[in-house]
Amino acid sequence: MHGIDEKKAIEELKEFLKFPSISSDSSKKKEVLNCANWLYRHLKKIGLENVQLFPTALHPIVYAEQISHPSYKTILFYGHYDVQPVAPLLKWKFPPFKPVIANNYIYARGASDDKGQLFTHVKAIELALKNKSSLKSNIKCLFEGEAEIGSTHLADFISRNQKLLRCDVAVLSDTKMLSADVPAITYSLRGSLNAEIIVMGPGKELHSGTFGGMIFNPADVLCQVVGKMHDPSGRIMIPGFYSDVVQLSEAERQFMKKSGPRDDSLLKDASSRASWGEKAFSNYEKTTTRPVISITGLQSGFTGEGTKNAIPTSASVKINMRLVKNQDPKKVAALFKSFARQYIPANVIYRIKFSSFTEPVEVSRTHPFILAAAQAYKTVFNHAPVFLRSGGSIPVVSMFTYKLKVPVILMGFALAGDNMHAPNEKFYLPNLFRAIKTSFLFTKNIAAQYNDHEHAYY
Amino acid sequence: MHGIDEKKAIEELKEFLKFPSISSDSSKKKEVLNCANWLYRHLKKIGLENVQLFPTALHPIVYAEQISHPSYKTILFYGHYDVQPVAPLLKWKFPPFKPVIANNYIYARGASDDKGQLFTHVKAIELALKNKSSLKSNIKCLFEGEAEIGSTHLADFISRNQKLLRCDVAVLSDTKMLSADVPAITYSLRGSLNAEIIVMGPGKELHSGTFGGMIFNPADVLCQVVGKMHDPSGRIMIPGFYSDVVQLSEAERQFMKKSGPRDDSLLKDASSRASWGEKAFSNYEKTTTRPVISITGLQSGFTGEGTKNAIPTSASVKINMRLVKNQDPKKVAALFKSFARQYIPANVIYRIKFSSFTEPVEVSRTHPFILAAAQAYKTVFNHAPVFLRSGGSIPVVSMFTYKLKVPVILMGFALAGDNMHAPNEKFYLPNLFRAIKTSFLFTKNIAAQYNDHEHAYY
Repeated sequence: MHGIDEKKAIEELKEFLKFPSISSDSSKKKEVLNCANWLYRHLKKIGLENVQLFPTALHPIVYAEQISHPSYKTILFYGHYDVQPVAPLLKWKFPPFKPVIANNYIYARGASDDKGQLFTHVKAIELALKNKSSLKSNIKCLFEGEAEIGSTHLADFISRNQKLLRCDVAVLSDTKMLSADVPAITYSLRGSLNAEIIVMGPGKELHSGTFGGMIFNPADVLCQVVGKMHDPSGRIMIPGFYSDVVQLSEAERQFMKKSGPRDDSLLKDASSRASWGEKAFSNYEKTTTRPVISITGLQSGFTGEGTKNAIPTSASVKINMRLVKNQDPKKVAALFKSFARQYIPANVIYRIKFSSFTEPVEVSRTHPFILAAAQAYKTVFNHAPVFLRSGGSIPVVSMFTYKLKVPVILMGFALAGDNMHAPNEKFYLPNLFRAIKTSFLFTKNIAAQYNDHEHAYY
Repeated sequence: MHGIDEKKAIEELKEFLKFPSISSDSSKKKEVLNCANWLYRHLKKIGLENVQLFPTALHPIVYAEQISHPSYKTILFYGHYDVQPVAPLLKWKFPPFKPVIANNYIYARGASDDKGQLFTHVKAIELALKNKSSLKSNIKCLFEGEAEIGSTHLADFISRNQKLLRCDVAVLSDTKMLSADVPAITYSLRGSLNAEIIVMGPGKELHSGTFGGMIFNPADVLCQVVGKMHDPSGRIMIPGFYSDVVQLSEAERQFMKKSGPRDDSLLKDASSRASWGEKAFSNYEKTTTRPVISITGLQSGFTGEGTKNAIPTSASVKINMRLVKNQDPKKVAALFKSFARQYIPANVIYRIKFSSFTEPVEVSRTHPFILAAAQAYKTVFNHAPVFLRSGGSIPVVSMFTYKLKVPVILMGFALAGDNMHAPNEKFYLPNLFRAIKTSFLFTKNIAAQYNDHEHAYY
């Protein structure tokens, strides 16, 4: 590719990958900072302006920009330079922080999630800056160091820096392609809301023979609540839960049927034999366009081998809800609370804690920015991207959507086998360079759409 | 007391208490055997006949007898020479296996449960044997070494030795008095049935975002089952569960009201503020004459701090049922199984395991043998025993009741503060000697009831 020294790019990426920037490991705080400083210096070196390291209560945020003209569209590139822990270390073929090239892959913790993908945008920006006069977009970079611990301080940073971060579109590369040659654009994400109910029982464990029958059992109370959340068909029984859920158009359902995974393929991914849930919907629809309540943890009393005949002192459940377009996590939390309350007897002490509050996100498949990304993919990969909905949630995408009020383009370049969050994480090198081209071209396409005198680069 | 050397009796009890006969600790197998051997030799020494050590797959059973005449009534004395573990050792004021006398108590693991209480019968028998010609009852002793691990091999031993163990009444001292001067006779015990339901989920943990909505959640299925076991008032909703439960007579309810603990007193024992359960019954009735289902353990998925958004691979519940007069644990197990099955979807793999199967027991308060015991108590303690129902279950009592088909007299001599199963276990020495007298007198009273020419000793 003209303008990019591939060998140099790989050496730079290796430097970036060498930092053990594990955000969840407090003993690595200094290394996370070193990594942020390296990124800071690198962004300066390639010619970005207003490069800043914003401290937070934990790991810093790296910011940089290139404002060419106030009338140009502004693209915000997001990525994260922190990584997952490496355990179990013995399962790694190569040391996780000594990057190695083998079989066309670069192996290291962070190779795909997210240092490698973040780096493709940095290289694309470097390319664009080399011929600044032909750059007809404004560029902003927002790289955080806390994505793997829930982007703890990012929401607050965005709220307090609305002007600095003002943009027309946000781009994020933290998702996957369908295969090495088939790109994918994720255009919808479910929201997420976590709840924990803790029911307090007697102040001490009570013998179930001596007291069973006269003292309420916290585990029983808990099961009464949880057992009433679904009817046998899997429909959620919390009053008002579906009120804001919008019916998909027949056209969208047909599109999903045509482009999305089939029931049996999803079942295979789940290593499961039978589908469950609302009969009127396909598995793909159920996991992306329908809300769901999943119990993720249950705990009460004695859970070891054998038996201990005692009424437990408490019982708790952890619940993860996934919400869809138009559902508001705050509103759902209120409905959930009222529902739970009605099944907990008076006199019983309990607590309901909520966390996450991630809004669902959907970008129109025909939005001009999405089309600009699709065109870039098609040019570089010689294959149009597949448009997919995801059942997961990405808090930062919700933040950009609802705090910055811009469409977010999920331009993923990772592969299913890249071992994100697992030992032997890797990134496919041919796609590293195709990703740089795609990102660069995306920038050009955006400019072309809004500046009549411009044309797409390719 | 004439005939018993109190000092010698205490020295002997100390010897007995020195063995760390912890049946649940496999490293103590030898010590349990040594303890059984001591008991075997002691029973020989006091003059019992046909003294035998019956090996089992684990700890031996000690047997002995004195058959004076085939026409005499035969009393079977039961006790256990094994003890609970001692942890936490640091909480003991004195070493658990170096008996110490302090403040009129003897301190040691097993002092009250059950070596001390067992020993009172041995001393009473010794007293009776000293004047064999005036002994008008037959005596059998059955002392086991596995009571603290569920009397694992006793049921089988009883079944295979019906003739050896044939008797007219069984006596067991493993319960408590109301206070140091107020004796109590427990005349009813609830039965017990333990169940465990294990629902298997997907073969691996599945991301609740990616798969939530299309795959059943084992914790949800479990809560659907458990949440339907009671209605909000606490009534058990398993069809047929109450079919065999007999309504108490108004006279018996009045007796219980007069002699039993009051609602507020039981609440205080439970450190609880409010009663729960069937409104038509008092707390004493609910915990002794009504069946109950208590959840004793719940487990599924992630139960640590924070959240892990995954559909769990399994979910399980441990349940303890207490059954009342006329209920058959086997029949209840079948009802429970049918009930659970109907709420578990087809395709879902699950297992229901039952254990315990202890039948409820009730002895008439006016049975001649009960009256013989009551009279003995009254003579020795100068206070008539209080007749109480217990909500707990004692498997060996059910075995004697249903396998030997004899009434079982629960002549407890322990006190509430004796720290059974806890550090600093102790036995109140004045009651050690009163217990010996009571047991001896009971033997005389039984004989007197059936032999016209005999009179009660006191």
